Amino acid sequence: MGLNVYLSGEIHTDWRDRIIEGAQGLDLTFSAPVTDHAASDDCGVAILGAEENKFWHDRKGAQINAIRTRKGIADADVVVVRFGDKYKQWNAAFDAGYAAALGKSLIILQPPEHDHALKEVDAAALAVAREPEEVVEIFRYVLTGTLPG
Amino acid sequence: MGLNVYLSGEIHTDWRDRIIEGAQGLDLTFSAPVTDHAASDDCGVAILGAEENKFWHDRKGAQINAIRTRKGIADADVVVVRFGDKYKQWNAAFDAGYAAALGKSLIILQPPEHDHALKEVDAAALAVAREPEEVVEIFRYVLTGTLPG
Amino acid sequence: MGLNVYLSGEIHTDWRDRIIEGAQGLDLTFSAPVTDHAASDDCGVAILGAEENKFWHDRKGAQINAIRTRKGIADADVVVVRFGDKYKQWNAAFDAGYAAALGKSLIILQPPEHDHALKEVDAAALAVAREPEEVVEIFRYVLTGTLPG
Amino acid sequence: MGLNVYLSGEIHTDWRDRIIEGAQGLDLTFSAPVTDHAASDDCGVAILGAEENKFWHDRKGAQINAIRTRKGIADADVVVVRFGDKYKQWNAAFDAGYAAALGKSLIILQPPEHDHALKEVDAAALAVAREPEEVVEIFRYVLTGTLPG
Amino acid sequence: MGLNVYLSGEIHTDWRDRIIEGAQGLDLTFSAPVTDHAASDDCGVAILGAEENKFWHDRKGAQINAIRTRKGIADADVVVVRFGDKYKQWNAAFDAGYAAALGKSLIILQPPEHDHALKEVDAAALAVAREPEEVVEIFRYVLTGTLPG
Amino acid sequence: MGLNVYLSGEIHTDWRDRIIEGAQGLDLTFSAPVTDHAASDDCGVAILGAEENKFWHDRKGAQINAIRTRKGIADADVVVVRFGDKYKQWNAAFDAGYAAALGKSLIILQPPEHDHALKEVDAAALAVAREPEEVVEIFRYVLTGTLPG
Amino acid sequence: MGLNVYLSGEIHTDWRDRIIEGAQGLDLTFSAPVTDHAASDDCGVAILGAEENKFWHDRKGAQINAIRTRKGIADADVVVVRFGDKYKQWNAAFDAGYAAALGKSLIILQPPEHDHALKEVDAAALAVAREPEEVVEIFRYVLTGTLPG
Amino acid sequence: MGLNVYLSGEIHTDWRDRIIEGAQGLDLTFSAPVTDHAASDDCGVAILGAEENKFWHDRKGAQINAIRTRKGIADADVVVVRFGDKYKQWNAAFDAGYAAALGKSLIILQPPEHDHALKEVDAAALAVAREPEEVVEIFRYVLTGTLPG
Repeated sequence: MGLNVYLSGEIHTDWRDRIIEGAQGLDLTFSAPVTDHAASDDCGVAILGAEENKFWHDRKGAQINAIRTRKGIADADVVVVRFGDKYKQWNAAFDAGYAAALGKSLIILQPPEHDHALKEVDAAALAVAREPEEVVEIFRYVLTGTLPG
Repeated sequence: MGLNVYLSGEIHTDWRDRIIEGAQGLDLTFSAPVTDHAASDDCGVAILGAEENKFWHDRKGAQINAIRTRKGIADADVVVVRFGDKYKQWNAAFDAGYAAALGKSLIILQPPEHDHALKEVDAAALAVAREPEEVVEIFRYVLTGTLPG
Repeated sequence: MGLNVYLSGEIHTDWRDRIIEGAQGLDLTFSAPVTDHAASDDCGVAILGAEENKFWHDRKGAQINAIRTRKGIADADVVVVRFGDKYKQWNAAFDAGYAAALGKSLIILQPPEHDHALKEVDAAALAVAREPEEVVEIFRYVLTGTLPG
Repeated sequence: MGLNVYLSGEIHTDWRDRIIEGAQGLDLTFSAPVTDHAASDDCGVAILGAEENKFWHDRKGAQINAIRTRKGIADADVVVVRFGDKYKQWNAAFDAGYAAALGKSLIILQPPEHDHALKEVDAAALAVAREPEEVVEIFRYVLTGTLPG
Repeated sequence: MGLNVYLSGEIHTDWRDRIIEGAQGLDLTFSAPVTDHAASDDCGVAILGAEENKFWHDRKGAQINAIRTRKGIADADVVVVRFGDKYKQWNAAFDAGYAAALGKSLIILQPPEHDHALKEVDAAALAVAREPEEVVEIFRYVLTGTLPG
Repeated sequence: MGLNVYLSGEIHTDWRDRIIEGAQGLDLTFSAPVTDHAASDDCGVAILGAEENKFWHDRKGAQINAIRTRKGIADADVVVVRFGDKYKQWNAAFDAGYAAALGKSLIILQPPEHDHALKEVDAAALAVAREPEEVVEIFRYVLTGTLPG
Repeated sequence: MGLNVYLSGEIHTDWRDRIIEGAQGLDLTFSAPVTDHAASDDCGVAILGAEENKFWHDRKGAQINAIRTRKGIADADVVVVRFGDKYKQWNAAFDAGYAAALGKSLIILQPPEHDHALKEVDAAALAVAREPEEVVEIFRYVLTGTLPG
Repeated sequence: MGLNVYLSGEIHTDWRDRIIEGAQGLDLTFSAPVTDHAASDDCGVAILGAEENKFWHDRKGAQINAIRTRKGIADADVVVVRFGDKYKQWNAAFDAGYAAALGKSLIILQPPEHDHALKEVDAAALAVAREPEEVVEIFRYVLTGTLPG
């Protein structure tokens, strides 16, 4: 058994690297959104032409990013969604809802101070982790039956 | 043609009332989450017994609320998601993602200052409105072909 | 047995009326797009605000119309798509493809001169009719077993 | 992440070649309809026997072509539909509707003069491009996060 | 609880009447194909115009009949398929397969001499009955919990 | 909003009556398996003829009961599964798994002594209740927003 | 593009071999039911123990064969169903209906004398062929665009 | 043709080994739950932190195990569920119901003394076997057409 994993959410810390490196040797295939913030914001107009209106500038970019996001979630067995300290992160919560409706196994990675605000999201998940290393341990156990320590 | 509409999101202003009252006479059936904030937070422990740990207190409540939310979205033709000025509102974005994955027609109701933060959510919607009255006009047009003014 | 019927396509002749009137007394429920051409083109900006760019003007309108179109097709047992003499009518062909992918029973109503150009669309249909009255006879037979004459 | 891409629509210019060649080195798998116009028109009778009636001649061919078209779209992550200058191109719009109903990511490739006539089709797409090279840039960005220039 | 029942198969004996009459008072809604053999054979050409080739004569009729058959099976909770003494009855077996793939509860009504030939069909069914009255008793029990005698 | 509720599981105590009576006045529609134990065991052979082999005696009955069970679960918004003190109750756990795979909202009603043995079943549920009256309170809250006391 | 093909139906002539050999060099993967008639009839009792009642003898075998049949059809892009000269062949028609309901591309291979009896089955197919070599030519054209001759 | 097989249920005897070893040389891919009883019970708290309340201790573990179980069943062509002599085994019955609702081919492996208690579960299965070696013979026949002896 191997697992396809989509790593959604916060793009300003190294949590994805910590999971991918920690999980080396396990039969996991990772995908993720484009994590270059500037490229992600501007991809629409950079490729398809400028927009005067910022609303449509954003729309063009968000829809191109959706090609990648939808593919990543559709192919995933497990979707990990990371909520960090900053920003609204509505796209992260959107991905979580999208994944839940498709019946994907959902793991939420978030600090305790968000517990109450994330209670509906967490209630749709199979695990709520605090650190990327816990996510790695979940994968190790799921794939090999081995517990930490 | 009639439409089932689920009104998701912000629960501290009268936007639901303004839509429901404005749309009187149209063939619309509305549903919504429980909008009594305290009841919504405590329903799990009030019915199924107290929890020492706030995390599980929240979980029990969120899962009971999910019975209503899932039914409302599953039966809806259109899901309207309102983002307001306060709070994290991750449950609203989660509902939007859930509805999008089920192929529901999505209308986002939000102030312009959230445009950039909501660009992925808006990109999955068929309309982005600023005022509840615009949502009413959308319903009036969709059901009767009549435009405002 | 009754049937929900969505009448898609050409909006400049009286074919919908001829079907609906001819089918009086049969257990049929009809729906259709908004057939007021001007309202259909301008609904987006009339409700949600003007756009300088005609492309986004059209987009806003097309997406609001999609709320009605998707509902009509989703609820339909039979989708009738009429191709007339004028215009590109790509939205009609789009509806036909959309309905076919959902497994709807498809009836195409078109003049013989379009036979070759419509061969892929016709090949997905259960009937190709030339006149609205033939569509009425199909419904009469399907619901009552009675043939014309 | 790799993508399966189905290239639907116009068969009289080199747009498919320009995409496939431009995208060399990216993890893309392309499929397309049979683009030999004469073979596509006559395949039914050439294999299964002649028909006196041109309508059934076309039907036999269109249904055999549907084996390929359905497989291509069903397996695709992204469907690119090209609308050119000539012909009715209803099969292209049909494919777009079919792909949209299956939830495929849709890219429309069309000249600006068709914008209004294609507004319903474009409204279901994640990108509207003018040149094949823009489609290539979309794939490059989606797969690698790299923008042009 | 009520049940929608589609009565498929043999059209030359009174088995449908015996079920419908026997089941009076139970919350059942019945549908069935057109059972007028001549009308069923000729509906296509009678409505849409004559065909020289008998193959297409049959095709046009079979496709119009499919509008009714698909609707009946799609809406059914239970599909009863009757195999009689005569004819090939491949359409009955086709309906059984179609219903099985959709997850419908299947009841086969057939004489013992067909047991071996129908073993694959019977293996997909929840009951194999010999007489229409047994089918009535199944419905009575399923809806009311009452056994015969 | 109303809810369809299927009451699965134990048939030897009055828990169904306590829920149905307690919930009077709420917009609920209940269904349940046949709760006459003897009829449920013997329905197959009573209607379709005796079997020498007890295994097939049971099979014939279980398959007729499945007509009712599948319909009840398929139509349900909420499936309540009661585990009591006696018997293996594998059919109750089977129904719970069946309902979970269909995405139904699941409520498990069971005494604390079964907590560990039911942990996988409970983990798929939105609520674990101890008494039928708690299930009533869940329905009252979900439908009206009113908490007990 | 490659195709998975399931070869259903008649097991007493060499039609499967003629297709598989004729199609050498094409990117096709074939599957089929067990074509050893005696083994197919007796597999249930040979593995799971004898039955006195021939009806259950057949049932046990048909259900084991269904493991293979369902897998073959579920994985297929194209299902070819051959109707021969002998036997009832209800399992072939059942497979055709099952495949049609799953949206598989269906090719029927049958002699002209069965045209009328198979009209409902043929009407669900994308091609009706008379000889296995025609089926090979369909595959060659679908995969390579090459016509015979 | 190859088969993915998920081996669910009892974890205290060597039945999985007997199937896997007996089936060597057949094109089968096996998956199973974690069969280390202690690890399976404690995985949640070992990875995500201790819980005072045993109910939530169990919940955290059961949900992590569900990541593996759901993946195994979702990918399986055949689900074998083993019921042994001890314990409640409600998770085994839950898996059987879950697999049945997804349309998986189901094989139940159980001793005759459970026949009556498992009649609803068995009625959803394509085979009821007594010994692991019978399951091996089913796989050998399904994949190669070869019967034992």
